[in-house]
Amino acid sequence: MLTGQQYLDSLNDGRKIYLRGELVDNVATHPAFRPTIEDAAAGYDRYFQPGEDATAPYYAVSRSVEDLRELEEVQLTWDMLSTSTATGINALMTAASRMRGDLPEYADRAMKWLEDAKKRDIRCVQTITDAKGDRSLSAGKQDDPDAYVRIVERRSDGVVIRGAKLHITSAAVAHELLVMPTKRMKPGEEDYAITCAVPVNAPGVKIVNVSYAPPAEHDWREYPASALIGTTEGFVIFDDVFVPTERVFLDGQTEHSADFAHSLGLWERLGSLGHYVELADTIVGLAQLISEANGTTKIPHIKEKISGLIVYATMLRASLEAAISGAMFTPEGWATPNELYTNAAKFYAASEYANVIRDLHDIGGGSTLTAPALADLENPETGSLVAKYMTAMPGVSAEQRIRLFHAIRDFTADGVGAWQLVTMLQAGGGLYAQRVVATKHYDMEHARTLGFKVAGITAP
Amino acid sequence: MLTGQQYLDSLNDGRKIYLRGELVDNVATHPAFRPTIEDAAAGYDRYFQPGEDATAPYYAVSRSVEDLRELEEVQLTWDMLSTSTATGINALMTAASRMRGDLPEYADRAMKWLEDAKKRDIRCVQTITDAKGDRSLSAGKQDDPDAYVRIVERRSDGVVIRGAKLHITSAAVAHELLVMPTKRMKPGEEDYAITCAVPVNAPGVKIVNVSYAPPAEHDWREYPASALIGTTEGFVIFDDVFVPTERVFLDGQTEHSADFAHSLGLWERLGSLGHYVELADTIVGLAQLISEANGTTKIPHIKEKISGLIVYATMLRASLEAAISGAMFTPEGWATPNELYTNAAKFYAASEYANVIRDLHDIGGGSTLTAPALADLENPETGSLVAKYMTAMPGVSAEQRIRLFHAIRDFTADGVGAWQLVTMLQAGGGLYAQRVVATKHYDMEHARTLGFKVAGITAP
Amino acid sequence: MLTGQQYLDSLNDGRKIYLRGELVDNVATHPAFRPTIEDAAAGYDRYFQPGEDATAPYYAVSRSVEDLRELEEVQLTWDMLSTSTATGINALMTAASRMRGDLPEYADRAMKWLEDAKKRDIRCVQTITDAKGDRSLSAGKQDDPDAYVRIVERRSDGVVIRGAKLHITSAAVAHELLVMPTKRMKPGEEDYAITCAVPVNAPGVKIVNVSYAPPAEHDWREYPASALIGTTEGFVIFDDVFVPTERVFLDGQTEHSADFAHSLGLWERLGSLGHYVELADTIVGLAQLISEANGTTKIPHIKEKISGLIVYATMLRASLEAAISGAMFTPEGWATPNELYTNAAKFYAASEYANVIRDLHDIGGGSTLTAPALADLENPETGSLVAKYMTAMPGVSAEQRIRLFHAIRDFTADGVGAWQLVTMLQAGGGLYAQRVVATKHYDMEHARTLGFKVAGITAP
Amino acid sequence: MLTGQQYLDSLNDGRKIYLRGELVDNVATHPAFRPTIEDAAAGYDRYFQPGEDATAPYYAVSRSVEDLRELEEVQLTWDMLSTSTATGINALMTAASRMRGDLPEYADRAMKWLEDAKKRDIRCVQTITDAKGDRSLSAGKQDDPDAYVRIVERRSDGVVIRGAKLHITSAAVAHELLVMPTKRMKPGEEDYAITCAVPVNAPGVKIVNVSYAPPAEHDWREYPASALIGTTEGFVIFDDVFVPTERVFLDGQTEHSADFAHSLGLWERLGSLGHYVELADTIVGLAQLISEANGTTKIPHIKEKISGLIVYATMLRASLEAAISGAMFTPEGWATPNELYTNAAKFYAASEYANVIRDLHDIGGGSTLTAPALADLENPETGSLVAKYMTAMPGVSAEQRIRLFHAIRDFTADGVGAWQLVTMLQAGGGLYAQRVVATKHYDMEHARTLGFKVAGITAP
Repeated sequence: MLTGQQYLDSLNDGRKIYLRGELVDNVATHPAFRPTIEDAAAGYDRYFQPGEDATAPYYAVSRSVEDLRELEEVQLTWDMLSTSTATGINALMTAASRMRGDLPEYADRAMKWLEDAKKRDIRCVQTITDAKGDRSLSAGKQDDPDAYVRIVERRSDGVVIRGAKLHITSAAVAHELLVMPTKRMKPGEEDYAITCAVPVNAPGVKIVNVSYAPPAEHDWREYPASALIGTTEGFVIFDDVFVPTERVFLDGQTEHSADFAHSLGLWERLGSLGHYVELADTIVGLAQLISEANGTTKIPHIKEKISGLIVYATMLRASLEAAISGAMFTPEGWATPNELYTNAAKFYAASEYANVIRDLHDIGGGSTLTAPALADLENPETGSLVAKYMTAMPGVSAEQRIRLFHAIRDFTADGVGAWQLVTMLQAGGGLYAQRVVATKHYDMEHARTLGFKVAGITAP
Repeated sequence: MLTGQQYLDSLNDGRKIYLRGELVDNVATHPAFRPTIEDAAAGYDRYFQPGEDATAPYYAVSRSVEDLRELEEVQLTWDMLSTSTATGINALMTAASRMRGDLPEYADRAMKWLEDAKKRDIRCVQTITDAKGDRSLSAGKQDDPDAYVRIVERRSDGVVIRGAKLHITSAAVAHELLVMPTKRMKPGEEDYAITCAVPVNAPGVKIVNVSYAPPAEHDWREYPASALIGTTEGFVIFDDVFVPTERVFLDGQTEHSADFAHSLGLWERLGSLGHYVELADTIVGLAQLISEANGTTKIPHIKEKISGLIVYATMLRASLEAAISGAMFTPEGWATPNELYTNAAKFYAASEYANVIRDLHDIGGGSTLTAPALADLENPETGSLVAKYMTAMPGVSAEQRIRLFHAIRDFTADGVGAWQLVTMLQAGGGLYAQRVVATKHYDMEHARTLGFKVAGITAP
Repeated sequence: MLTGQQYLDSLNDGRKIYLRGELVDNVATHPAFRPTIEDAAAGYDRYFQPGEDATAPYYAVSRSVEDLRELEEVQLTWDMLSTSTATGINALMTAASRMRGDLPEYADRAMKWLEDAKKRDIRCVQTITDAKGDRSLSAGKQDDPDAYVRIVERRSDGVVIRGAKLHITSAAVAHELLVMPTKRMKPGEEDYAITCAVPVNAPGVKIVNVSYAPPAEHDWREYPASALIGTTEGFVIFDDVFVPTERVFLDGQTEHSADFAHSLGLWERLGSLGHYVELADTIVGLAQLISEANGTTKIPHIKEKISGLIVYATMLRASLEAAISGAMFTPEGWATPNELYTNAAKFYAASEYANVIRDLHDIGGGSTLTAPALADLENPETGSLVAKYMTAMPGVSAEQRIRLFHAIRDFTADGVGAWQLVTMLQAGGGLYAQRVVATKHYDMEHARTLGFKVAGITAP
Repeated sequence: MLTGQQYLDSLNDGRKIYLRGELVDNVATHPAFRPTIEDAAAGYDRYFQPGEDATAPYYAVSRSVEDLRELEEVQLTWDMLSTSTATGINALMTAASRMRGDLPEYADRAMKWLEDAKKRDIRCVQTITDAKGDRSLSAGKQDDPDAYVRIVERRSDGVVIRGAKLHITSAAVAHELLVMPTKRMKPGEEDYAITCAVPVNAPGVKIVNVSYAPPAEHDWREYPASALIGTTEGFVIFDDVFVPTERVFLDGQTEHSADFAHSLGLWERLGSLGHYVELADTIVGLAQLISEANGTTKIPHIKEKISGLIVYATMLRASLEAAISGAMFTPEGWATPNELYTNAAKFYAASEYANVIRDLHDIGGGSTLTAPALADLENPETGSLVAKYMTAMPGVSAEQRIRLFHAIRDFTADGVGAWQLVTMLQAGGGLYAQRVVATKHYDMEHARTLGFKVAGITAP
């Protein structure tokens, strides 16, 4: 296993990482990557054990409702990069199991790579969304054939791939990229049916990043949430990258091309719903704390808005409970969260989130935006005056109240809040995608039977 | 135990039942009470067993999550009057248990009455909401002291009560009325702390009814939902009613006056959430069936609306699952649904219901209102023409399509639909009440801790 | 001109009107048609003037913003049948003007019929929505060629038509039916391009009705809103109806087939938006009055809900003002309401209506459903008791409070309320149709320019 | 009049401006104040005319509906600081007119100051919101008597004031601060009834700022909206500031203390509603342009969401039209926008804004967050690759698409978007305040009359 320091050292490996038009010298020391990297390094140190057989907990498999409940809970304490690694590894295992009958050789390669990854204690991210070009055309029909990642050359010892993968959170600070087809490919699209593992520093890989970390000139204390959960989003380019055969887990078998996206979906849901519940409870907490700090806890419309936030958080927690107690099991006996509940909950979480934030901002008041900085509180020329006028209620210091305003602004509007506003909608494909999947898993026959009954029709 | 016929006969007992300004001669034969009574009689026949020791299943007590789940399911198949009886009996037992320490004599009386009720196999309803007068004043401060039901005379062998109880579903067709205080009474309001069991035909009891059954001149087939679930609402007047001591379960002990309302709340939730889930699934079913009949299942905005109904039904089912798997237990080990989940779910169900109905009507189209009657289909002068023009898709007959339109209209707009539109909101006290209870049971300390964490504040 | 009595007499003309499976002997004396007919007769009497040259005001043409404002106002005082007549007459004039260039003969026929109709002082309704069959197929592609009204025979002196028109409000009590194509017909669909005027009592016309009037056995005072505005919806069947040439205003000219639907849309909007504003204000009024009667005007969540209703009513009134002050003019100089504002307002009115009703019911409370009848108040056995317990606040009698509860229930839930719940959505074609038309009239180029500007892009 | 350069020079006047804990050397050259200052300087140059009698157009008074319409339009082209100046000047005039009867001396002082301000061509901002302390207590009851700005000393030649004013947009770059009481003061609170004009550089004035301008290290092209409309919010401290008598416009006359807040409200609305309409149209434009760039204009759920945005923009424009055509007039004949329409519109705009943004983000997709920078497009190592993979549709370059994504993110999520998200709610006092004012101006008697009518009650 690696220590946090060894992880930091491992990132200085010649990778091509770009930010705001410039090549980054070393991601491990660049401030824009700081929150993710510090968090990931702490994750390494937390679980580090010496010895050759020691492995990280991210490889564990849930086999019961109890396992699943435990995993949901511990996962909330993991760093983002490790969570992503666990998700990818589990997804690859599930996909391997689905291929074993038809493509035993490919399934074996995937399992071998996994064993090796476990020993090397690496972190990886999944790269799935293609550039897509014209969305009304399929992969094989695009003007630019590279709009979806594809094999441009097959050699005796491997393949060469070309294309781009978008919206890849934390890609710049991982060790490997799991490349997967974004959807089912059709006959004739064999070059697009490619799954493989690519080191981030492989020749031809370039990652153009967008960062939501506060800029260097700012005081991080004004961005308490971004400091905890800020990350980078990578635009990953495969500019004719060679992948040796032992790292290729699918090569042209279009009939298995959707296994990976589907398996990944199964495991991604594990984390996201738990995260939404915590997010919602955090918002209730911020609303309650700022109303205490403002002295508005007894104002009827404030109470009503907080109770609305509580209903939101509770409905999400109820669906998490239902998703776990109604777990579904794969043929191998692996427990996965119930698909119907998780998808309905994702839709509910995302579609109501905007109003939840609106109510939090209404509860917070104008100082959500205009509260001075902590540095203004420490400046001898302004400190005592800011303290005097930012104090509203006994028992809550001006500093505490200012920190709460900063947290609300940073957590829900700018900084990581802006990131959250959009990812809440877009993770898993937009509101539309979530409706479709929920509908697919709903027991429509039961509903039709009830409909016939109330209409006095003998069901045909 | 009684048979259905014995139940019908038992209703002709001199009770004073009024409808539209007239005394009803015999509720058992009056058309306005038909759906409830037929359903209740069938319930008697379903469980009838000969012999002295036989008892109805409405008295069973849940002692585990599994019991609770089973009860939720079977209860959906019970008639409304029996469900109400089960709720009242369980509530009385819970309240008796709470009184046992302080008021053993009253607890014993309640248990004795219960034993007797079980043997007599009677049906009862709870009467709780008072007339209330000026809502900004408490019971003891009203201009009219009878605005809340009260004891107007205490005799050696019992008490005389006066007042009214409102919104009492099915009161006219039950055997007994369980009278309970609507809320906590204060010292000085001892006359309002009265709980007792009163036969419907006791002298001085008058029940003024409102009926949602279709009028006699209409064809019941146009009201398929009302025929299944239509009921009457009773305005119950106690015009100086004598109640013998053995039927008085609370008499002036204000400190125990809220036990009954609280216990009743616990048990009422058992049925209502399960009912909401079935209601939501029924609406999904009607939406799907009418879109099949109209030939609109592939129109994007229809699909989108149906998927929205599915999310509603699924979020409700998730909260039912969570309410059961997170059951709470009384000191006696009796399982009750989780209060937080049930209250949040009730709020969600009620506040979204209006939009759910709107979407169903948008899916159905104008014929929801304007579809001809089945009688027009049978009239030789118009039948074949109505059939011709009411057929839209092969595989769905004009009759079926018409029945679906009638069901949607009757189930969600007029008839029982109007009743449902309002009771969905008002059962349990309006949207406001549901917010308050959900807030009370929410783990605010956990939320505050999360809020402090994201704000970078060491929790005080 | 006709008096009200002459109008009543004129309805006994052999017309084939069906209700609940039976032929109606005389609509003028049948209780189900009562509210519409009484209202229409009063309309005749209101404007009656003796003399050959006297004409009703429904034929006036607006030529300025001021005219339009005046028309909007007076129209709110007209009965439904007269409003419908005015709408149809104006629509026919507009369509005639559009045809004049290409089809002068047809335009002339329409104008002649109009002159005659004015002299006869008749009332007419527009019949537009066809049965439609499979909605994914056009008129000419249906399994049943009669799914859209069509010409089945052309004779030297006229045509024979067959088909059905749905959702025709008040058809049973009008004198003539204006038959129009429901949408643009394509080449090859010439038989479906038919516009004509058909007397309700023409041989082959059969109207199957649905009534929302309260049944005869009920007390009309429990349905105060239905008594004012209840109507019937007609399912109009043309079972091979002969139409003489002078009554045919379009016969096969597919390129003009959409003129009628479009002209009708223009004029229908005139009435509907004004009606929505009055409806919204009425709901605010009911909410305020019942909260006064209940004594809840100072409860914060009640005040908040009423203020929400006020915003709804005000936004609708604003759009009515904008629709008038931004009137559009036809080539003839006839003023019509602005299409963008009216369509956006219709969408807003319809999509928010469900929540408006929900809030009204939440404000009203359970007695919205369960308030006793006025007959119970008059019954000596119950009257004083019902009065005693239905009184909440000084200054509002029990009778007044009961009437308000009945009005809320009848106006917004059952009776005419059910009708309103659905027609609010479906008039003009469902939420989807209203979105489409609003989008069509929006100034997208202006919006794109603003978008380019904020993006720092020089507009291409 | 001043030129832009003279304005810039005038700011280097010793004012005490703080940002992130540090005193700003010269606001005119500090990057954080750049967008507001550049915009304001351009505003000076735009209207500059030489000569002593030349004055800026911000002092014009509307006397008719046409004037008001013209003002609404031109104001959209003014810079924020000039708009604020115009609002403040008009508000002061209105207040002066209200005081003239009772306090002629104070009214005269205000008019004199105005004349002088016009000649000096200065820019000013209104400071109104106090620190407030415990919100459940009035100004005179606070633990800290300075929680509301007050007079701490009265001298022969003026007064000394102490306190703070919050949320003062652009305060740091204005010349003078108009200090006004935030609400009606009561007898005994004479020291809080203070209105006066204070130069920004007066001794004792300290302004602590929060900036939403992008940090210096960032490329402004990634923040195209912030570059146009970004501003600073000032926390203005009056640390015992002397104000000479000729600048004091109210001094202890509590009965006139609310005149200023009320007059300010009247004039603020003039700008805000016009701004909301433009904001809404801009959002429609961005949605349309990004869907064109993504190739999703024909996807049904995208079309539906855009049509929803159109309804929002149109309802706002309708209320602007109604607010102008229904203008109200002061006794002086000055036209002001209709209060009912503007307040209902503000509530609608603010309460729906969250969903509007949600739909825009759903339309935009994940690249709203993750689109690379323009600098990445210009970097030779990544430029052609980013261009290749960021191109989706012919006719829209990668650069254009990237700029649109940046604009959406910056305009609606982080940067000025975060500012807008909160100010949309908080300007004018939160959702609650807007409900209250709308309710106050609604014609409730008309609504009650309609309610009585539909209930069949003769209005008392």
